[in-house]
Amino acid sequence: MNNDQALIIKEETLDPADWNEYGVIAHRMVDDMISFLKGLRSQPVWVKPPESSKAFLRQELPLKGSPLADVYQEFLTHVLPYRKGNIHPRFFSWVEGTGTFTGALGDLLASVMNSNLGVGDHGAVYVERQVLNWFKQIMGYSPASTGILASGGSVANITALIVARNAFRRGFIKKNGLKKMDGQLVMYCSTETHNCIFKAAETIGIGSDYIRKIPVNDAYQIDHVMLQLQIQQDRQNGLLPFCLIGNAGTVNTGAIDPLMELSLICKRERLWFHVDGAIGALANLLPEFEDKLKGLADADSIAFDLHKWLYVNYEAGCLLIRDGNIHRKAFVQQADYLLKHERGLAAGPDSFSNYGLELSRGFRSLKVWIMIKEFGIEKYKRLIRQNINQAFYLGKRVRQIPLLELMTPVTLNIVCFRYNPGGMDGNDLNELNRELLMDIQEKGITAPSYTYLAGNYVLRVSITNHRTRLQDLEILLEQTLIHGNQIYEKLSK
Amino acid sequence: MNNDQALIIKEETLDPADWNEYGVIAHRMVDDMISFLKGLRSQPVWVKPPESSKAFLRQELPLKGSPLADVYQEFLTHVLPYRKGNIHPRFFSWVEGTGTFTGALGDLLASVMNSNLGVGDHGAVYVERQVLNWFKQIMGYSPASTGILASGGSVANITALIVARNAFRRGFIKKNGLKKMDGQLVMYCSTETHNCIFKAAETIGIGSDYIRKIPVNDAYQIDHVMLQLQIQQDRQNGLLPFCLIGNAGTVNTGAIDPLMELSLICKRERLWFHVDGAIGALANLLPEFEDKLKGLADADSIAFDLHKWLYVNYEAGCLLIRDGNIHRKAFVQQADYLLKHERGLAAGPDSFSNYGLELSRGFRSLKVWIMIKEFGIEKYKRLIRQNINQAFYLGKRVRQIPLLELMTPVTLNIVCFRYNPGGMDGNDLNELNRELLMDIQEKGITAPSYTYLAGNYVLRVSITNHRTRLQDLEILLEQTLIHGNQIYEKLSK
Repeated sequence: MNNDQALIIKEETLDPADWNEYGVIAHRMVDDMISFLKGLRSQPVWVKPPESSKAFLRQELPLKGSPLADVYQEFLTHVLPYRKGNIHPRFFSWVEGTGTFTGALGDLLASVMNSNLGVGDHGAVYVERQVLNWFKQIMGYSPASTGILASGGSVANITALIVARNAFRRGFIKKNGLKKMDGQLVMYCSTETHNCIFKAAETIGIGSDYIRKIPVNDAYQIDHVMLQLQIQQDRQNGLLPFCLIGNAGTVNTGAIDPLMELSLICKRERLWFHVDGAIGALANLLPEFEDKLKGLADADSIAFDLHKWLYVNYEAGCLLIRDGNIHRKAFVQQADYLLKHERGLAAGPDSFSNYGLELSRGFRSLKVWIMIKEFGIEKYKRLIRQNINQAFYLGKRVRQIPLLELMTPVTLNIVCFRYNPGGMDGNDLNELNRELLMDIQEKGITAPSYTYLAGNYVLRVSITNHRTRLQDLEILLEQTLIHGNQIYEKLSK
Repeated sequence: MNNDQALIIKEETLDPADWNEYGVIAHRMVDDMISFLKGLRSQPVWVKPPESSKAFLRQELPLKGSPLADVYQEFLTHVLPYRKGNIHPRFFSWVEGTGTFTGALGDLLASVMNSNLGVGDHGAVYVERQVLNWFKQIMGYSPASTGILASGGSVANITALIVARNAFRRGFIKKNGLKKMDGQLVMYCSTETHNCIFKAAETIGIGSDYIRKIPVNDAYQIDHVMLQLQIQQDRQNGLLPFCLIGNAGTVNTGAIDPLMELSLICKRERLWFHVDGAIGALANLLPEFEDKLKGLADADSIAFDLHKWLYVNYEAGCLLIRDGNIHRKAFVQQADYLLKHERGLAAGPDSFSNYGLELSRGFRSLKVWIMIKEFGIEKYKRLIRQNINQAFYLGKRVRQIPLLELMTPVTLNIVCFRYNPGGMDGNDLNELNRELLMDIQEKGITAPSYTYLAGNYVLRVSITNHRTRLQDLEILLEQTLIHGNQIYEKLSK
């Protein structure tokens, strides 16, 4: 050592000075979190954040630090009680995941390891590859196909569309850009497609005007006759059809597009066939969905979410691409600081960064790996089936109750219905159901969400929840009737 | 209840049957992780995963489950020991984060809550907004600017370039796509720019041929005279310059481009000025970098990483955009199922999904919030300065040692040097240093990485590590000399 040390007067670290003190806090957190999850059912689904907590969360940038125990107390006071509620057994809004305690422990371990899976030869990389191989098997893809974990369906879908676009004319666009193309690219999906697909099309430079939103039939599936007419017309007009997106479970109603027909159209028309299976692709685990999901394994790419039906804690999505070479070509870059070596840290399998948007990546696969190993796929099958059966049960119950109206047949895990006392005009009925929903949510007993179907405002129940029981659905029905009647009476006065 | 209940024979959940049993495992994990981190310094930086563990991680998809305790044991045996090592005090490869135990606890809490921040009125949303406001303050942006957290620098940079592209011609491209533009868009950056920028340009449809890689000066900063000539020439050729990327810390050497000059060029040329500050933007906390980073606050957008110099656990990056309206316009979508309501769950602040690629998003801001509050910004300043001083110290020590050669002056936290006994030709010297690096990494005592500078293979030390001490740098020097001498002797025989 020498005098230059004077440069650094006193070396500091963010490690605790006293690990025991942190052990005490960490153990308290574990106990608190277990009590919290254990007692979740008796808590409100959702409590609006009060002004006092919102004000607390507008603090100045803290210059001085505070003891972790104090910060934790602030979390307990101002953050935890005002959670969104999607872990509650009676949360049915949008399509949100529930997570598990096991998943949270996986996140703790992953976060302590703090692995960066971008490049390198280390254990986490092999865990992630194993998880990807499991998903290939689940979706009926060959081991030679490739995949990448993503933050969720949005990024998985965007990643797929980059590959689809770059595959068209074999890499011309990656190098030369879209402007230089000999025509305007155009892509196809149904009107019921999730908005992340439109965002993806805008992201990759196609432009929202060149996403053809094909009408749906009464079952909210893409009309494949209309689709073929549109492709024909676009070709006649000199456009370049390059990609079709099929839905395995739409966001509004859970509809599954006729994937087999779509796959054949894509083969004939030489289109990339991408399936957005964020909501329903994991139903491929169930033999009773074999017919409906036939065609999935023929897709060129499938995006799906693990933080929905695999009940994995946020964030976890997945993309699979049937042709690994095409996948790699879409993303591979050269950089001196990323050269592979035969030995040492920079050896190991082909970098994930050659298959997606990110270079640095966290160890999100650890929780997935632990959960699949702990629960096993057979239990997952039973739980996914349970959620679907619960949706069918709710649909049946709605049909039995005169004041309630089922707005579309149940086909997956989503139920759309409304309170309808009869004799009201459409607008008033929409307004009533909108008030009803907000009342129910604010009461904190149960939380469905909403959408519009054919101009009708409907209550929408989506069940990707391993905590939901039939009794929770009965409470939902009861609450809908109580609040519906109250509002209707008020209106009738 | 009624007979339809028979649909569901036995309701199951992924919650533990016995919470106490899970409590025991969770407490064991906490104790193990504390012991692990406490003893980290005496562990090898990196151990190559053995064939037995790689084979174990090629298991079939498990149909049956296993007790969590068994799965945890497998993690302890096959995953944890073969970590990448970036949390170790003597890991200096690439630019990787170290994380903290506090951050890991934040991840545990966030993962239990499992909040989805996509839409809704709940506490997590206010935490994330507070964190974004803090970063605006740190970077000198006004409170009216907007921001979004991202998985890291890559996605933050891509998100910025989508905004820059869509801002050009005021949204024309979002709707009509690039093909319909009245010219070819072209963007600018230095040859030292991170490859995620090239990936971003390809992603948004510009094409890699239209990223102009401008040469650098001896300090690895963009040559702004060459830049202006290139812009002029492109305009003369009918191209449409739209964006310039400045570096606040390049990946190879930590160079900071002349941001003030670049900002003025952008104003004059009406280009979007984006700064990739993944590596160095947080040095803006230090007054001694005020001159070098002048111009940062004038940028239209800044991307930076929290999992690097804020020592936040993976994944955490951030993007700030000076003009919030332009930011929002680039991403906003309409969807019936995402309508905002005045009350209930669907009220609350403007959705983050209007500002980035993702709809569903996890609660990554919680760990950032807890860490900034616990440590305080003053301590962060000291630690960032400590890493920079350590780099200067290492540079000085390299210059003092005859067998070592400093390859470029140290300006930030990156040091590039090589073992050079003299009298060897360039190729042999490159080969020697490559062997040397792999030997050092495999020995597990210290882990620098590598790059090429002007054709020379160099050892590259990057310090974004709150655990590193001066003695670790001395060990690195010692190891370099021992292994360098060994290889040189072998070659000389």
